[in-house]
Amino acid sequence: MKLLRVGPPGRERPAIIDPNGEPRDVSDLIDDWDGLTLDDVVLNQLRKIDLTTLPSLDPAERIGPCVTGVGKFVCIGLNYADHAAETGADVPAEPVIFFKATSAICGPDDKLEIPRRSEKTDWEVELGVVIGKEAKYVSEADALDHIAGYCVVHDVSERAFQLEGTGQWVKGKSADTFGPIGPWLVTRDEVEDPQKLSMWLDVNDEAMQRGSTATMVFGVSHLVSYLSQYMSLQPGDIISTGTPPGVGLSMTPPRFLRAGDVVTLGIEGLGTQRQVCINA
Amino acid sequence: MKLLRVGPPGRERPAIIDPNGEPRDVSDLIDDWDGLTLDDVVLNQLRKIDLTTLPSLDPAERIGPCVTGVGKFVCIGLNYADHAAETGADVPAEPVIFFKATSAICGPDDKLEIPRRSEKTDWEVELGVVIGKEAKYVSEADALDHIAGYCVVHDVSERAFQLEGTGQWVKGKSADTFGPIGPWLVTRDEVEDPQKLSMWLDVNDEAMQRGSTATMVFGVSHLVSYLSQYMSLQPGDIISTGTPPGVGLSMTPPRFLRAGDVVTLGIEGLGTQRQVCINA
Repeated sequence: MKLLRVGPPGRERPAIIDPNGEPRDVSDLIDDWDGLTLDDVVLNQLRKIDLTTLPSLDPAERIGPCVTGVGKFVCIGLNYADHAAETGADVPAEPVIFFKATSAICGPDDKLEIPRRSEKTDWEVELGVVIGKEAKYVSEADALDHIAGYCVVHDVSERAFQLEGTGQWVKGKSADTFGPIGPWLVTRDEVEDPQKLSMWLDVNDEAMQRGSTATMVFGVSHLVSYLSQYMSLQPGDIISTGTPPGVGLSMTPPRFLRAGDVVTLGIEGLGTQRQVCINA
Repeated sequence: MKLLRVGPPGRERPAIIDPNGEPRDVSDLIDDWDGLTLDDVVLNQLRKIDLTTLPSLDPAERIGPCVTGVGKFVCIGLNYADHAAETGADVPAEPVIFFKATSAICGPDDKLEIPRRSEKTDWEVELGVVIGKEAKYVSEADALDHIAGYCVVHDVSERAFQLEGTGQWVKGKSADTFGPIGPWLVTRDEVEDPQKLSMWLDVNDEAMQRGSTATMVFGVSHLVSYLSQYMSLQPGDIISTGTPPGVGLSMTPPRFLRAGDVVTLGIEGLGTQRQVCINA
């Protein structure tokens, strides 16, 4: 199933894409797409319903973030061998973990705010993993059972804030609108192999990132198991699994986003995003 | 006012300490202590009530975390001049920011789980700042208006996970029970000067940390203003403002927590915590 949330910011209704590709309102059946409903029992009940009998939604309405009430927005750094190479960094021996602020989460097509004093706002298309069942000290073999599904994440990054000041990366990863997610949360049964998805990102229709989850250093099962040794993963948590080559920082000369730029991105089977950049 | 939450994990009720020092149940008046209720309007209405008319609570009942629905658990590193000195680090030129997982949050007297494979679980008493009103690009002069109040935070830290592996500190800061908060959220009107609070932490009744918020490098107003340049702070977010000297890592030889150890800690006017260590 393709789960989404439709409506104005803060007042989205939960929806599912029907067999004809149209969004259907499921707010009579569940409160919202969050940690309470991204559960195999709930999802299996919804699979039995003829979606075309549910209220239709205007396909032109805004799409919000595909999940709400996200407790943790965990990110993995330098997790594509070809991206590590372009940054000049070694492939890490173990996953590099950092967090984005959950307040950075927004809809896939919302405006992208360039922070005040920013000169180095950069792009990163990433595969997002949404947790469906608590994971604490889980094995790699069991890890996929804890996943509700997958989504596109844009891990927007301010490189000066991230890398040039004091301390940790979170400072350059957490501005409002730096975390568009969606359009859909695609349930895991519809993603045959999360390690074989092509992904892309353009700026003003010019190709910037072209890659595949096949070149991930640490795959999805390993990441869920690894993270669960250090923190419990809760339903509704998102893991953004790293970006393939082609970020602005690695270009010669480096290239960054400015107000008016349009970023489009997508992952095979998970839909596309489009953001117009504005000044905060 | 001293706000708290009383009851079994996940089923706490909101309460306030009455003039006689007893907890009173306010669950008929508000749903919970979270981002929606830590608001000047709500708090001012509650100030008008004779608390002794409200239902009493058993003072022996478990105290939970003093706020729920925390969106961000932001921490400041190396923010005491005397603690930076003991770790051998320079005082940072700007605040060092990292996050703890919100799933680490627990009650002030809950068991402290030593993670599996941990050999270096350490302690850090810290002043917690709880946001009451959204802060985005706020000035230092206006910063205190965005604070609902203060609480004790125990920023439990696994030093090998934090410092010896790949990447960012979050890995050693985020295990379940690594974030006891409370017992109370003390509203800001009751804290005359957040930069003049003595703080302490003992292990098995032996003094480990003795300090004062007076030696903070970056004070509370500066931190709120600074953070708000990089991310929006939302009601219910917590900022843990760093620790004074006396952590286990800095001792000769270093000293860490083991199952059976008892940690007690407190901050002047904000109450005390007590945790018995167990193996996860």
